Amino acid sequence: MSDLLWPGDDRAGDLFTDAAVCSAMVRVEAAWLDALVLHAVAPAEARDDLADLIGPDDVPLVAAGAEAGGNPLIPLLKLLRTRLQARNPAAAQWLHKGLTSQDVIDTGMVLCLSDAAGRIRADLAAQATALARLADEHRETAMPGRTLTQYAVPITFGLKAASWLTGVLDARDRLAAAANLPAQVGGAAGSLAAPVALTGSPAVVRDLIETAAASLGLPFRDPWHTARAPLTGIADALVTCTDAWGRIANDVLVGARPEVHELSEGTVPGRGGSSAMPNKQNPVLSILIRRAALAGPFLAATVHAAAAAAVDERPDGGWHVEWATLRTLARRTVTAGAQTAELLAGLQVETSWMTANLAAARPGIDAEQRSIVPETAPGDPYPGAIDQIIDAAMARAAAVGLADRAEESPC
Amino acid sequence: MSDLLWPGDDRAGDLFTDAAVCSAMVRVEAAWLDALVLHAVAPAEARDDLADLIGPDDVPLVAAGAEAGGNPLIPLLKLLRTRLQARNPAAAQWLHKGLTSQDVIDTGMVLCLSDAAGRIRADLAAQATALARLADEHRETAMPGRTLTQYAVPITFGLKAASWLTGVLDARDRLAAAANLPAQVGGAAGSLAAPVALTGSPAVVRDLIETAAASLGLPFRDPWHTARAPLTGIADALVTCTDAWGRIANDVLVGARPEVHELSEGTVPGRGGSSAMPNKQNPVLSILIRRAALAGPFLAATVHAAAAAAVDERPDGGWHVEWATLRTLARRTVTAGAQTAELLAGLQVETSWMTANLAAARPGIDAEQRSIVPETAPGDPYPGAIDQIIDAAMARAAAVGLADRAEESPC
Amino acid sequence: MSDLLWPGDDRAGDLFTDAAVCSAMVRVEAAWLDALVLHAVAPAEARDDLADLIGPDDVPLVAAGAEAGGNPLIPLLKLLRTRLQARNPAAAQWLHKGLTSQDVIDTGMVLCLSDAAGRIRADLAAQATALARLADEHRETAMPGRTLTQYAVPITFGLKAASWLTGVLDARDRLAAAANLPAQVGGAAGSLAAPVALTGSPAVVRDLIETAAASLGLPFRDPWHTARAPLTGIADALVTCTDAWGRIANDVLVGARPEVHELSEGTVPGRGGSSAMPNKQNPVLSILIRRAALAGPFLAATVHAAAAAAVDERPDGGWHVEWATLRTLARRTVTAGAQTAELLAGLQVETSWMTANLAAARPGIDAEQRSIVPETAPGDPYPGAIDQIIDAAMARAAAVGLADRAEESPC
Amino acid sequence: MSDLLWPGDDRAGDLFTDAAVCSAMVRVEAAWLDALVLHAVAPAEARDDLADLIGPDDVPLVAAGAEAGGNPLIPLLKLLRTRLQARNPAAAQWLHKGLTSQDVIDTGMVLCLSDAAGRIRADLAAQATALARLADEHRETAMPGRTLTQYAVPITFGLKAASWLTGVLDARDRLAAAANLPAQVGGAAGSLAAPVALTGSPAVVRDLIETAAASLGLPFRDPWHTARAPLTGIADALVTCTDAWGRIANDVLVGARPEVHELSEGTVPGRGGSSAMPNKQNPVLSILIRRAALAGPFLAATVHAAAAAAVDERPDGGWHVEWATLRTLARRTVTAGAQTAELLAGLQVETSWMTANLAAARPGIDAEQRSIVPETAPGDPYPGAIDQIIDAAMARAAAVGLADRAEESPC
Repeated sequence: MSDLLWPGDDRAGDLFTDAAVCSAMVRVEAAWLDALVLHAVAPAEARDDLADLIGPDDVPLVAAGAEAGGNPLIPLLKLLRTRLQARNPAAAQWLHKGLTSQDVIDTGMVLCLSDAAGRIRADLAAQATALARLADEHRETAMPGRTLTQYAVPITFGLKAASWLTGVLDARDRLAAAANLPAQVGGAAGSLAAPVALTGSPAVVRDLIETAAASLGLPFRDPWHTARAPLTGIADALVTCTDAWGRIANDVLVGARPEVHELSEGTVPGRGGSSAMPNKQNPVLSILIRRAALAGPFLAATVHAAAAAAVDERPDGGWHVEWATLRTLARRTVTAGAQTAELLAGLQVETSWMTANLAAARPGIDAEQRSIVPETAPGDPYPGAIDQIIDAAMARAAAVGLADRAEESPC
Repeated sequence: MSDLLWPGDDRAGDLFTDAAVCSAMVRVEAAWLDALVLHAVAPAEARDDLADLIGPDDVPLVAAGAEAGGNPLIPLLKLLRTRLQARNPAAAQWLHKGLTSQDVIDTGMVLCLSDAAGRIRADLAAQATALARLADEHRETAMPGRTLTQYAVPITFGLKAASWLTGVLDARDRLAAAANLPAQVGGAAGSLAAPVALTGSPAVVRDLIETAAASLGLPFRDPWHTARAPLTGIADALVTCTDAWGRIANDVLVGARPEVHELSEGTVPGRGGSSAMPNKQNPVLSILIRRAALAGPFLAATVHAAAAAAVDERPDGGWHVEWATLRTLARRTVTAGAQTAELLAGLQVETSWMTANLAAARPGIDAEQRSIVPETAPGDPYPGAIDQIIDAAMARAAAVGLADRAEESPC
Repeated sequence: MSDLLWPGDDRAGDLFTDAAVCSAMVRVEAAWLDALVLHAVAPAEARDDLADLIGPDDVPLVAAGAEAGGNPLIPLLKLLRTRLQARNPAAAQWLHKGLTSQDVIDTGMVLCLSDAAGRIRADLAAQATALARLADEHRETAMPGRTLTQYAVPITFGLKAASWLTGVLDARDRLAAAANLPAQVGGAAGSLAAPVALTGSPAVVRDLIETAAASLGLPFRDPWHTARAPLTGIADALVTCTDAWGRIANDVLVGARPEVHELSEGTVPGRGGSSAMPNKQNPVLSILIRRAALAGPFLAATVHAAAAAAVDERPDGGWHVEWATLRTLARRTVTAGAQTAELLAGLQVETSWMTANLAAARPGIDAEQRSIVPETAPGDPYPGAIDQIIDAAMARAAAVGLADRAEESPC
Repeated sequence: MSDLLWPGDDRAGDLFTDAAVCSAMVRVEAAWLDALVLHAVAPAEARDDLADLIGPDDVPLVAAGAEAGGNPLIPLLKLLRTRLQARNPAAAQWLHKGLTSQDVIDTGMVLCLSDAAGRIRADLAAQATALARLADEHRETAMPGRTLTQYAVPITFGLKAASWLTGVLDARDRLAAAANLPAQVGGAAGSLAAPVALTGSPAVVRDLIETAAASLGLPFRDPWHTARAPLTGIADALVTCTDAWGRIANDVLVGARPEVHELSEGTVPGRGGSSAMPNKQNPVLSILIRRAALAGPFLAATVHAAAAAAVDERPDGGWHVEWATLRTLARRTVTAGAQTAELLAGLQVETSWMTANLAAARPGIDAEQRSIVPETAPGDPYPGAIDQIIDAAMARAAAVGLADRAEESPC
């Protein structure tokens, strides 16, 4: 899967591609079939791991067939069943028994979202580690503090890095709270009527669902076909990530302006060039991260609009709008997360320019300090609680296990 | 404060009005002044509760003065200082010392948001109580389950109410996680430089902030001037509420269609009439709730866009866009929450129409059941795990203290 | 009407206030009543201009009554009728005859939107005049061209001003195309059944509508209760304005950074100060304009979402969400338009800094030129078609009547 | 290109695929190279149509290379140049001379958008033709008018179809006004410095641009690198289309509810089935159209947010966010347009259910009529100006050439 119009998208690799979604849906069907066999609802010979029945080459056919029933599971299931019939008629008979399309699609989406969340968590950890190091290393690297674009009071770059770290840790917490997405099994209208009719027992059905969910690594939840907070929650967490990264990118983009010159992206051969201007070294990662942050709020909001459009026992459009939206949001967030991790790993801090800019900002930038401590001489330190704020951000990172990495690092 | 163009807005009463925001900012200044005195940074005579210095009549002047400095705190502070000078020069001298505009505005916003969240929590509790009752009472009230607008399989209204309840409890959890908003004290550029310069000690400054925050009922947090996840979190929680309510309203609006006739809003004299059609009884509450759910995602997304626009130590517009957006979102959510609580309290469940619609849906609606249990006779129950799902939703409500109310209720 | 949380909102004055909306709805009722009399549908004694029956003091009562019927016209009409009954029973009897709430509210909204559009048009003209002057005056004021935050090739400030002017003229054209909003008269379900029943003739009803519309200065249009393109069109035009102004503000905010120093807002006593930092001179107008540009897309999108939610002959929430959204968007656009006009009128162009920045950008910024014309010496002009581009933008302004003003100006 | 998660996406075929975008950008480079030769700026041997140099198989490589420079043109150009060098060194030398990446990408986007707009225009015409026919045919097909979900007064289905037609014609007008998108040629910073340096003459450069634009079928426009109204205009037009179609889909979805039963989608073998419920016949087209209408406003708003983020002579993210957003919006609109055309062509109007529902709505639905004409008997016609409204909508369609088709049609 390539996306020519979202440069960097290939960082998301196979996550949430059409093939990955197909594969996830097949895994859901297989987990359910397994559970039916394990709990002796279906006979032992109905067991089939299904995994090899469908491959990436089938995607165009499945996609082309998705409109007729309004979702991709129906043609996928038809294909699965046809192929399964040949080698395992019992499995073909028990396949999908008791489920509804939404069960498989929702759970498949959850699997793909969880994979994406895993990737993002790793990049958030790498970012936090890098930021803790930057904050610590630059505790005393003085630079102008700026508010509303103008000089305010002196700060240090370590304080700025700690503030970035706070944003990253907030995003991490939000994602941790949202990412434990549940399986969906509700049957045709969320009452579990079919599986209970099959098995004769709600308790057995509960066992079936828990077994299937556990085999997929997902928690149980009562049917949530039209109660979509799990999905709005993950969407909100994803945009909270791009918010945090966008704020970092904005600062790098200001810092990379040649007149400011305080920050620059690490040099990578071939990156940042121009088609016409040989002199250019553009802060490409920051630009692409900022791009993701501009678009993110609209995507997460679409998931909310979908949730708010829920009606009946399965909505007439509100459900369908979630799929592509969540995929786009997830892949873009994965991409931006990897870009931000790389940006921070390679960030060049031009301390001499920070010093020079701060000097040029005097005496104005010292005005507040002088108003409080009239005997202030130019260049007198005005550190406030910078050390304490940095320590607190680093301790917060440490408390979630991100500090160890920083400590282990050889810097 | 009236809002002619958002009918029902008066349900939000004085929450987050201009006067309430002014009052909240004055409370913040007073809490800080108090803390300065308590920790002996300012002399005892600088104590002043400020509360009577500014009133609703001052709002137009403050509002008119807000553009010059780009925020409402500057003119408010000027007015406060002028009036305070006359009666307590020491207080006038120490007022706002060590703070920046953003500290006072952010914390004032937090106070107003917390007030709104409290109101919403109460309405969510009332809704949960009403829904638990509806779910329990209508466990066996059969009706057609509908997916994609068409008949699916039979369900009961209790199951639908349990699904609504799930949405409400999800919103409650999200709000509980987000509503414990912190105070903001960071000084001019988030380094706490001025208060540390004033007191000579980061530790004392920490004590000052904790004292001031505690007196306002808020937790401490290191400066978050440009790390805005606390605000995006509350915005996301608010829209999660309107999502959940919109989904209920959508169902009521379908149910209230005369051809469906399964649900209707409680009759209130004078409500639901038309300017031209004497026969009309419009489901006004549901319409107005749905309206809020349509608009909510755009408002929460604006708060994310603001967060993603953060730059420097205080952003050049990203901060400013939060204020009115959060106020509008909060008041509308309060309004919709009260309307939803009233809607649910008065909801009329037309069981005879549910029965009739279900009968008319046969035999098609029994097709799935017959495909699983071929010997199914028309009208054979197909309950699935409805009781278990209802019990689980009720237990979840009980676990957060909402069940007690239901049990205490005299129904 | 004050809005403490949207500094500068008072620039919108009485436009679209609750009182203005009430007054506009009363004007609509009066125009219809007049038309009924003029076309002899109602007796001559039913004529009444209504204007003095309702005033700003009635707004709270009307607003409080708006929830019961879901719209503000119902309580307004009740109040009108009650008061009218006393002095002119014939008018009271004929008041609103043949209309539906939506007719009056939609047309009232159109009147308020038209007033706002008029104000914006005037400010767009003032902006265009100022920009044409800046473009002309600074044709040869060399400065660094910047792309992706980095130096590209030299440009002139006149070219930048011409680009800003292009955005303003585009917005002007968009607004001109969208602002000629029509009256709405459709009756209860858009069939004009009631007025035709009243008069016995579709032709007479057409005359009635045209008379009433003309007296309000509005064009006729067949009923558009659920075909909302007129409103999405004006919303799109308004956000096109804030887009254009946001882009100007962004450039000013970069230019006002102390390290860049190429642009600054005109100094106004008392503006741009800080609550804590006496040295600050913040580019307040640009910040507030940028704020509006950040929020605008979400508001216009809400109007589209409302249009897309249309259903039946009057939608169940989609209609209701338009009112406050359009008001907010209109007032904010008026405010930002006035701020932009003032910003441009007072903009300080620091040509010496442009020169210095360009010098510092050498030799890199000359690289493209040297690659085309290898014998280029440092500082050789590289003007391209700047004069032609400026002339074309100025001619475009002239063609819509904005040039005359520029020519008349004494500069 | 398949999109498993947006069922129906294959209706957009090759429009705006990665390969189509590459091809469009190659066409732009070729048109410019041609113009250079035609105007004797480059030697005759530099002519090369380039078309066969790049094919769909190159897309992954180009996409993978897009991140380094932040846009897809840079790697595409490198590939082109390498391959061209082998067969035509003169062409390789003159390729892209005088252009900047943005020129080629913007113009390439414009070509793809124009192709999409052409497809949509054809579908709008087909829709208008179908709607004119429905309106005409069902002038007197009485049905209940509904407002706020409740019965209002009787209307006819022809009136409803005329209202749908109005929305479609409004969308058509909006698209016609927006779709004439211009070419972009501005050079590195929008000053046309490089091409003027190449040719020595702004006049020649103007000729070059006009020649290249004309060969691509596009109008000339002065550089609009940071004045993005052309793109927000087309985005607004596209969402105006999905608004209009969403409103139709909403009505069909209500009409297709089994209790209402007034409308149904044409039966297509295999469409509308369920994975679990053999009885289901889901209104799939309407569901998928509604889905597009739910998502559209967020996409168009993203394009506005991008425009509002413009800064400098090329923005740092605002530009980059447009590409994928416009592609997604365009493909979804094409898909929804085709689905709507098919929906309308096959729409089943269940006149007997309309009659029955209207009868059941009596006497309430006659209340307004009786209040005006007290002697009304049940079932007395209450047509208002329905014929006139239908005629006007049909005449409006005719005036834009859509009537001929309707007249020619054999119905």
